[in-house]
Amino acid sequence: MKLATYKDGSRDGQLVVVSRDLATAHFATGIAARMQQALDDWGFIAPQLQDLSETLNHGKARHAFPFDARRCMAPLPRAGQWAVGAAYPSHGELLRQAQGAAAAADPLLVQGASDGFLGPCDPIVVASEGWAVDVEAGLAAVAGDLPAGATPEEALDGVRLLLLAGDVRLHALGDDGAASAYGLVQARPATAFGPVAVTPDELGEGWQGGRVHGVLQVACNGRKLGLCDAGAGMAVHFGQLLAQLARTRPVRAGALVGTGPVADRGDERNGRTEWPRGFGCIAGKRAMETVQDGQPATGWLRWGDTLRIELKGRDGQSVFGAIDHAIAPPAGLHPVPAT
Amino acid sequence: MKLATYKDGSRDGQLVVVSRDLATAHFATGIAARMQQALDDWGFIAPQLQDLSETLNHGKARHAFPFDARRCMAPLPRAGQWAVGAAYPSHGELLRQAQGAAAAADPLLVQGASDGFLGPCDPIVVASEGWAVDVEAGLAAVAGDLPAGATPEEALDGVRLLLLAGDVRLHALGDDGAASAYGLVQARPATAFGPVAVTPDELGEGWQGGRVHGVLQVACNGRKLGLCDAGAGMAVHFGQLLAQLARTRPVRAGALVGTGPVADRGDERNGRTEWPRGFGCIAGKRAMETVQDGQPATGWLRWGDTLRIELKGRDGQSVFGAIDHAIAPPAGLHPVPAT
Repeated sequence: MKLATYKDGSRDGQLVVVSRDLATAHFATGIAARMQQALDDWGFIAPQLQDLSETLNHGKARHAFPFDARRCMAPLPRAGQWAVGAAYPSHGELLRQAQGAAAAADPLLVQGASDGFLGPCDPIVVASEGWAVDVEAGLAAVAGDLPAGATPEEALDGVRLLLLAGDVRLHALGDDGAASAYGLVQARPATAFGPVAVTPDELGEGWQGGRVHGVLQVACNGRKLGLCDAGAGMAVHFGQLLAQLARTRPVRAGALVGTGPVADRGDERNGRTEWPRGFGCIAGKRAMETVQDGQPATGWLRWGDTLRIELKGRDGQSVFGAIDHAIAPPAGLHPVPAT
Repeated sequence: MKLATYKDGSRDGQLVVVSRDLATAHFATGIAARMQQALDDWGFIAPQLQDLSETLNHGKARHAFPFDARRCMAPLPRAGQWAVGAAYPSHGELLRQAQGAAAAADPLLVQGASDGFLGPCDPIVVASEGWAVDVEAGLAAVAGDLPAGATPEEALDGVRLLLLAGDVRLHALGDDGAASAYGLVQARPATAFGPVAVTPDELGEGWQGGRVHGVLQVACNGRKLGLCDAGAGMAVHFGQLLAQLARTRPVRAGALVGTGPVADRGDERNGRTEWPRGFGCIAGKRAMETVQDGQPATGWLRWGDTLRIELKGRDGQSVFGAIDHAIAPPAGLHPVPAT
């Protein structure tokens, strides 16, 4: 089934069930008001949501209405935990190649803030264009309760929902904790999620080996940045990411783990690596330019730039709906001058 | 006023108001069922809780009952964000002195997991004694909503509640993100909070300059580890910590920021530094031993070891109640052999 959260002025919004084709939706009122409530008591609530989903998909839900992604918050608007991985090693390899051998490898998991996620069409407000703004397109999983020391197989069984993620990065504020005293905390200001959260069974053949298979389309100002396969380059699956998170402690229902930026391995052509399917973030494209031409040609994101992220299944249909938003200056605040 | 959360089998527990002397308590039912609910709508709910607090302190609350810290969850059992700072620079300085000049400075803020905090008397379950278990005694603040770019003064005004914190560290799993691929995420498995959350105004003279003043008593197996002043060595105040967290994004009500381990500057005696008031964690004591004697004599925490953390005000009374728990192996799980 597919679930979303509609804005209603509250911090947690209203849980809705969305049809498979993303055309219609139905409030889950009477089953669960909020997404976290469903996750807290999944075994009891999920079957009821599933029944509503089937009624909706058969066109028989009485109070169905047209689904509108612009009315969505993040499917889980706030959560107890958001840890981002580096599941596509070719992203880090390309960046290290561009930066020289001295650059350290990314840690596999980094905690981020989860007190307020962005909805799929919310603006990304940044106070300075000089902060080297980027958005990393990837996927994320919402976990159920996992015991400390859960195996990757147990953790994979605990995946409740899959999401499309757009993780904002401010590269000028330090890419790694060691480089800057305020490093990662300030450099990862926000994460947006696609409008619809999807149960693994809903993906059918698109869910294999603990990975989501499909083409992740990333476009900046309407121009292609990437058309990478989300499954092919993912070196560790969601169960492995969650097992790493759960190695020393239990993970609680509603905890989110992300893949980090989707990346393609590239093709070898005439002894040279090329990336015809592009990248999941600006940093990847800039690294490729640096490796090929000695310097980056693509600029970081600026105010007014738009970014669209969408995953298409084998049937060409949008699986999660699209993250579709613009970089914006703060309203009524004096922007910090670029440094 | 003083607030706590009683265990009731749910994930969020039941909000209670606690008397100033920690002797009696009263359910906040009818005002707010959960702590997050009070934080979400603080301006409306806090005055009602304050009224109940005054009635309770005057011994006139009809359904008051004896307060029992063993029935407490963390005051905020789960939250959207938990960022830990390094507010006491002498802790890091001593550790770097023990490790040699090559050790990097701590980042000022590191995100931790906030999907399930430990109550003050819950066991600290660790699968291996070989993980070099430590608990860092410090303080924490719960914030209200802060806009991105909030100044330290604005952020200080946004401090809603103060807490006693005990942050579990597994030093064998990597002290910094650069040292290990799984570094901080696995090395910071859990955080316990003292039974009672306290509003800044309740502290009276104990709240000055954005710092909590009082003696933080830390005892391991009943023997003193530290009696450090929580205010004296705190180089940045809670408003400064929160402003760093809010520099690039809004901070949402219920976000928690911690000081990191309380540390004393030590005294200069006969050209040699001594630490008669002790330490806020085992790592501090081991670093002192290494600096003075070439190697640590104090072991890390083992199964069965007990730890007690309590802050005493100028009147000698306990401000937050005590964190009082034991290190324990997992029930029914085969412990991981020490490595």
